[in-house]
Amino acid sequence: MEHREKEESSRVEGRNPVLEALRSGRSVDKVYIQAGLHDGPIQTILREARKRDAIVAFVTKERLNQMSETGNHQGVIAAVASYQYSTVEDILKRAEEKGEDPFLILLDEIEDPHNLGAIIRTANLAGAHGVIITRHRAAGLTATVAKASAGAVNYTPVAKVTNLSGTIEELKRRGLWFVCADMGGTSMYDLDLKGPIGLVIGSEGTGVGRRVREKCDFIASIPMKGEIDSLNASVAAGILAYEIVRQRG
Amino acid sequence: MEHREKEESSRVEGRNPVLEALRSGRSVDKVYIQAGLHDGPIQTILREARKRDAIVAFVTKERLNQMSETGNHQGVIAAVASYQYSTVEDILKRAEEKGEDPFLILLDEIEDPHNLGAIIRTANLAGAHGVIITRHRAAGLTATVAKASAGAVNYTPVAKVTNLSGTIEELKRRGLWFVCADMGGTSMYDLDLKGPIGLVIGSEGTGVGRRVREKCDFIASIPMKGEIDSLNASVAAGILAYEIVRQRG
Repeated sequence: MEHREKEESSRVEGRNPVLEALRSGRSVDKVYIQAGLHDGPIQTILREARKRDAIVAFVTKERLNQMSETGNHQGVIAAVASYQYSTVEDILKRAEEKGEDPFLILLDEIEDPHNLGAIIRTANLAGAHGVIITRHRAAGLTATVAKASAGAVNYTPVAKVTNLSGTIEELKRRGLWFVCADMGGTSMYDLDLKGPIGLVIGSEGTGVGRRVREKCDFIASIPMKGEIDSLNASVAAGILAYEIVRQRG
Repeated sequence: MEHREKEESSRVEGRNPVLEALRSGRSVDKVYIQAGLHDGPIQTILREARKRDAIVAFVTKERLNQMSETGNHQGVIAAVASYQYSTVEDILKRAEEKGEDPFLILLDEIEDPHNLGAIIRTANLAGAHGVIITRHRAAGLTATVAKASAGAVNYTPVAKVTNLSGTIEELKRRGLWFVCADMGGTSMYDLDLKGPIGLVIGSEGTGVGRRVREKCDFIASIPMKGEIDSLNASVAAGILAYEIVRQRG
């Protein structure tokens, strides 16, 4: 349904390429530096690495030689996270390959990168096959999101769609049920959340949009006893995802 | 067990927020009201302010405009003592007054203010009677935490203790059970989480400390199917708190 987008991958070698990777805002997980090197360019790389919260490891030249793919590492190799948007097709295929009913988490305009990251992290651990986000008015797979996901972006596919209600409609034809998190619905404990399911989480400010909500089969509510209005979006997603886990278990 | 502490004052603007602050029992030091306003909502605010012993000052619109940070004071600004720490005693009393088994959430060195705020928010909605945090190496009740709590700091008491394992020991003598969130324990679905309970959540980096963990009666684990290690601390707290809600329900 969506075309595949690629961002680059894993290892960057050499002083300028590593510096460039750090400065470009790509998420550099770790920088390996040859122990004993203290020259200017190395100092610059160290400074940038600290600025970007990259872990720095000092290793032997032999270790770098082993790691190197180009044979020209100049004393520096960086491990760069690669995030690649997936497709809705691929997510469904993933469920099929595992022989499991599809379990998708759909996010209707989640804007806070920490929430998006935390939700991808939850999706990974709850055994969801993928996350679908909206192209507009929503956080994408930035370095902040990747970090907040604790690396889950490397395992749990994320697809980006333009029209979430259209995607839901298409997936309903393919046998999925959709449950939307919102107030005033049925208590999640009273719903049957087994089978092929899509869990729809709304934005921090306004919840699930009307057009998306209308496409859903159920409104699931988390029982609320307190004085305030709503849970944090990533916490709500976690609670609902794990109610699905419990019922499936 | 802990003495009450006051932090510096902050400002609440607008009719509903001020009324809510007064009614929630927060200590409102002073209410500034635009001179000449006598409508119903203003009368209500005046009545509540007198009931709470707040000083009322009538000032010009220009003065309010100067004081306003939001630009939308609607003729009323209140100076509110920021956030007031509660005591473990008060939290237990709150449970008793409600005729409920105590349900406490204890945080072992949660450092991220967004996580702390989200957990207080969750505690409020899950019907926990209070949150206990550590005095050291932990976020306190700052403005960021209050904001992330979506106002829950006004309703759900937060107590600060120096020695969390000591507090747990004392509360065990008073009949509470303690369940600690950690890996390698019993699946939370297989534990009996009813009765007077304290849920212990560990820090983002290192989880629950050894001394605290040793005091707990059970280790509860959230089933994890994915490739990564752990959930976000506030998401984990939400999932476990709601498993307690489900079992109590």
